[in-house]
Amino acid sequence: MSDDHEETESDGAHREEFAHDPVGHARVEAGMSVGELLETYDDAGIGAADVHEAGDVLAEMFGNEECTVFLSLAGAMVPAGMRRIVSELIRDGYVDALVTTGANLTHDAIEAIGGNHHHGRTHDPERSLREHDETLRDEGVDRIYNVYLPQEHFAAFESHLREEVFPAVEGEEAVSIAELCAALGRANAAVNDREEVSADAGVAAAAYECDVPVYCPAIQDSVLGLQAWMYAQTADVSLDALADMTPLTDLAFDADDAGCLLVGGGVPKNFTLQTMLVTPRAYDYAVQITMDPEATGGLSGATLEEARSWGKLEKDARNASVYGDATVLLPLLIAAARERVE
Amino acid sequence: MSDDHEETESDGAHREEFAHDPVGHARVEAGMSVGELLETYDDAGIGAADVHEAGDVLAEMFGNEECTVFLSLAGAMVPAGMRRIVSELIRDGYVDALVTTGANLTHDAIEAIGGNHHHGRTHDPERSLREHDETLRDEGVDRIYNVYLPQEHFAAFESHLREEVFPAVEGEEAVSIAELCAALGRANAAVNDREEVSADAGVAAAAYECDVPVYCPAIQDSVLGLQAWMYAQTADVSLDALADMTPLTDLAFDADDAGCLLVGGGVPKNFTLQTMLVTPRAYDYAVQITMDPEATGGLSGATLEEARSWGKLEKDARNASVYGDATVLLPLLIAAARERVE
Amino acid sequence: MSDDHEETESDGAHREEFAHDPVGHARVEAGMSVGELLETYDDAGIGAADVHEAGDVLAEMFGNEECTVFLSLAGAMVPAGMRRIVSELIRDGYVDALVTTGANLTHDAIEAIGGNHHHGRTHDPERSLREHDETLRDEGVDRIYNVYLPQEHFAAFESHLREEVFPAVEGEEAVSIAELCAALGRANAAVNDREEVSADAGVAAAAYECDVPVYCPAIQDSVLGLQAWMYAQTADVSLDALADMTPLTDLAFDADDAGCLLVGGGVPKNFTLQTMLVTPRAYDYAVQITMDPEATGGLSGATLEEARSWGKLEKDARNASVYGDATVLLPLLIAAARERVE
Amino acid sequence: MSDDHEETESDGAHREEFAHDPVGHARVEAGMSVGELLETYDDAGIGAADVHEAGDVLAEMFGNEECTVFLSLAGAMVPAGMRRIVSELIRDGYVDALVTTGANLTHDAIEAIGGNHHHGRTHDPERSLREHDETLRDEGVDRIYNVYLPQEHFAAFESHLREEVFPAVEGEEAVSIAELCAALGRANAAVNDREEVSADAGVAAAAYECDVPVYCPAIQDSVLGLQAWMYAQTADVSLDALADMTPLTDLAFDADDAGCLLVGGGVPKNFTLQTMLVTPRAYDYAVQITMDPEATGGLSGATLEEARSWGKLEKDARNASVYGDATVLLPLLIAAARERVE
Repeated sequence: MSDDHEETESDGAHREEFAHDPVGHARVEAGMSVGELLETYDDAGIGAADVHEAGDVLAEMFGNEECTVFLSLAGAMVPAGMRRIVSELIRDGYVDALVTTGANLTHDAIEAIGGNHHHGRTHDPERSLREHDETLRDEGVDRIYNVYLPQEHFAAFESHLREEVFPAVEGEEAVSIAELCAALGRANAAVNDREEVSADAGVAAAAYECDVPVYCPAIQDSVLGLQAWMYAQTADVSLDALADMTPLTDLAFDADDAGCLLVGGGVPKNFTLQTMLVTPRAYDYAVQITMDPEATGGLSGATLEEARSWGKLEKDARNASVYGDATVLLPLLIAAARERVE
Repeated sequence: MSDDHEETESDGAHREEFAHDPVGHARVEAGMSVGELLETYDDAGIGAADVHEAGDVLAEMFGNEECTVFLSLAGAMVPAGMRRIVSELIRDGYVDALVTTGANLTHDAIEAIGGNHHHGRTHDPERSLREHDETLRDEGVDRIYNVYLPQEHFAAFESHLREEVFPAVEGEEAVSIAELCAALGRANAAVNDREEVSADAGVAAAAYECDVPVYCPAIQDSVLGLQAWMYAQTADVSLDALADMTPLTDLAFDADDAGCLLVGGGVPKNFTLQTMLVTPRAYDYAVQITMDPEATGGLSGATLEEARSWGKLEKDARNASVYGDATVLLPLLIAAARERVE
Repeated sequence: MSDDHEETESDGAHREEFAHDPVGHARVEAGMSVGELLETYDDAGIGAADVHEAGDVLAEMFGNEECTVFLSLAGAMVPAGMRRIVSELIRDGYVDALVTTGANLTHDAIEAIGGNHHHGRTHDPERSLREHDETLRDEGVDRIYNVYLPQEHFAAFESHLREEVFPAVEGEEAVSIAELCAALGRANAAVNDREEVSADAGVAAAAYECDVPVYCPAIQDSVLGLQAWMYAQTADVSLDALADMTPLTDLAFDADDAGCLLVGGGVPKNFTLQTMLVTPRAYDYAVQITMDPEATGGLSGATLEEARSWGKLEKDARNASVYGDATVLLPLLIAAARERVE
Repeated sequence: MSDDHEETESDGAHREEFAHDPVGHARVEAGMSVGELLETYDDAGIGAADVHEAGDVLAEMFGNEECTVFLSLAGAMVPAGMRRIVSELIRDGYVDALVTTGANLTHDAIEAIGGNHHHGRTHDPERSLREHDETLRDEGVDRIYNVYLPQEHFAAFESHLREEVFPAVEGEEAVSIAELCAALGRANAAVNDREEVSADAGVAAAAYECDVPVYCPAIQDSVLGLQAWMYAQTADVSLDALADMTPLTDLAFDADDAGCLLVGGGVPKNFTLQTMLVTPRAYDYAVQITMDPEATGGLSGATLEEARSWGKLEKDARNASVYGDATVLLPLLIAAARERVE
């Protein structure tokens, strides 16, 4: 080994060329702010460096007044308690369009009309895994990883939809899915105003009140969709699967700058990215939080580099991917980005 | 340590109760069949044991004449070369309904009309990652992990849709997505018959010819969906987002036994499982192949146990989950299950 | 669906029994502390709930004066910038024994004698992956994921070992690995005192100065081990592979309470846990941070439940596992736990 | 979209340059051999393409008479039933050095003296996860993922070591770990010869009988190591932690060509690779099977590209990494490679 090293040591020129910043030593102390935590990640390597970069891109994107921001929200983010973080982002003007799943809209409405999700368990210390889920079934409780939802809330949700949401979109004309989402947001907001259900009427209500469109391409793949289908058996409601693509494309087309925050993969991620296939532009900023491995070859875990080959990202776009749990990283990144911007 | 052991050794009763089968020693030899490989996994532990169980459940499900089989196909399975395995499963009568993505249908049609996907690279030995994808973009090539698709095929696909598919669903009435998929399958089969494009007209064609319905809930989230939207700007085509749920539910309702093979997660997995929420029954067999970690809390990686809490699986359903790459495991499991059944 | 729900609604008894806490809504705001972030994770589900629990267990363990704390440190934690967080934990009395890898000790010493790791890249925007690593090789730079280390530092490390560390353990008697680690820590501290290299002399120095033993079972699997072997070709140095197990076992034996923080898996994790196999006690607290999937069946990703079957954890031990990147989670958890304790 | 396509279509030159092979369509049929399965993976993309490449590199490496082959075996491969595949590789002359863990040697010896591992469960349908592992503990059964080992076998293993293995390495001189492994292999073989325990005396016995050295750097991190330590309390046994590095380095130094098959990560992987740091050569072939994500930054999941920056692989080395469960992939790859070579 020593031969190599002596050679290197005498090679003064080499050391001058090696112009990479030293890795610092991350420091933490009692009482530090989340923004300071993000800054100390900049001293570190491996994933911490990526989290710092993601926070930096987010802060620049949120601070750029000219930037149209698309938020893609897949996974069980509302049952997992991320609802308020998202609704406050919307209310504070950081989001221009939301792309999400029918499940998130379903669970958001359940909270808006007074239902609750509950802290549960992936397994029960008193029961086997199978008994655990069978017992929950017998008790009328649905499990989403470690979150429980009493099924009775689905009955209240059904009444809410049938009384306050679906009638608003009834008629001979098919409506777009975004129109249904807006009707849902309006109804959620109204219940909350009337009954003071909680401090926050939720994601759909915030979007409705702030004129932020909500896109939900696979709406039929959710209890919200199942309810719409059942209602449509006896009423004049129909949803046009293609109608949202015009306003969504227009939004992308008209943006000065465009950015996206992709929370999870799935249909919301792809739908957010593919919008750029039918415009002459592409995203200038992109941040993704994912736990899906790239090696599946699926779009959920695909790198943002791959998105360049399709023209979904500008060649000089700032982008960052962080690999980890969105329930941990989303609060951290939003807290830090807001600390920077505000 | 020895104390424990002495106690155990003298405890003859204990050993009699310990009635677990010994782990054998997996054996392999040159020329063994895939079915023999699956059998030797039964001698092993960890994931190999799960692969054996999945093959066993699949063979029972495929061998059960009374069983209605739902195949859910997410991810880039067609670009990755799994098209023929699926179309042969359909043609040989093993599948009663297919739930898939617009992307898989898009890529299936591209092959049906004479296009090809190509072996490519996630990275290029001559170029940086960024240059790699930028060069592909400049050359008009889209990348799907390590598969390349020349964009010119999208133009041929557009012509195929505009000339042979969309006109068949034009009219004042909105059509269901499954009707559009059937029109696509019929057109793909016709091209292949006429021009002898390849030995196999693909997934949609096989489904059309065998009267197997194809469900594609998030069709707008694909090039197929984008093209439908563009066509609808100047023609009378509209897609009813909810219409498929009636025949799909009827299929589940009428099944003697019901089983599903879930390849990947996403909307196809959830849509296949949620069908059971609106019928009094649930799946009797379920096999999933996934790389999505359970710990995300998302539905893609959710265990089949969790599905019991929702009533999507029968309490005594046979089920198995295998964690790994579907392009490796699907061929292996299908070859082994067919070896067993045939 | 409605049938189920009506039944549930009339079943008042059921609702009283359903005593799970509601999932709150995580809230973040500009300027909040890391401890407040950890608290808001308690409102959330999925992984955030686990991070909260891990922080809670850590705070209790660090706050328990009677508890002997073992810190297991695998992976590239020192190159990744976690060195100071660990050395401050040791200096502030939170750690009673450290189990780590030869690589971490090598990189810790390189920093102690004035070397630096540098922020690098997993891939270079100007070069292919292969060229990237080949260029680094030509430039004499070793890559550890996104961290670079100029190889010339290995020459300085070699001199440090040959002049200040190995002579201290020379002699006819074989020494234990912990004795070599202590000699290394003493020498690192001395260089730093003499030359004021940096604000922090590092992990081994802190351990030496605080009388915290450092165990490194696979020392030969590192540059430190290679150097010891080369030195031993011409000098009387030998390392007894088994000698450390007596003091380590005594430490576990004498503990009132015992706890461990397991950062990464590998040999450090197993060695820390297996210590309890030869004592009549087991861990009362255990927190692990890992990205290794359980499904490999390997010890690195094994659950802490599995450790109960071996008697490594007490039946009523408090334990938590968090799945994610240690360079992100370790700073977060330590900042939050220190905020709680101090 | 169409603009792009027209441009591309008219660009005849482009299409000629696009010289990538088409993705074929994987085909499976009842009764096909594992070698044929591997060949059909060559038609596919994503992970299947990598499995094909790994099989191809393995077949070339095994077929190259000039190649010195290092087999690194981490993880619970012996408990998981991979023992015979490995011992037959050794007996058939495919392996020149084995690097493994103390755990694999412990479990290999337990089988050699008549003990068995058993098919168990990660969870029990009748019990909670916690009760499951507590019950196993009460019954004296250790769990390794879904494999059970009655602890009584450890007592028999202890006797075997104390009567037939440790005495052979007693004396004033410290012995190398490889010498202890050879003594273990000889004793395992002798028991099997005498008592006809099973058709196969296992990995250590095969290595002993074929003069293949077994390296186990972290031997103290296992029950084998714990027993050696306990024996050494009252007898003159000591293990020199550094002694193996001379013959291992000589083996690498003298090789015409060098190749490695890395099963899992951990110390065995790094120790196998770092051997090349102290020789002027590097590996010409490398295949790794891993489930560890690269993004941890740890060596276990590190790419083989990263190993080039350190000079562990030759610049033009053939290498392949497959991401998946070794209990599934090792049998598949070995069966296919043997079908090719034999």
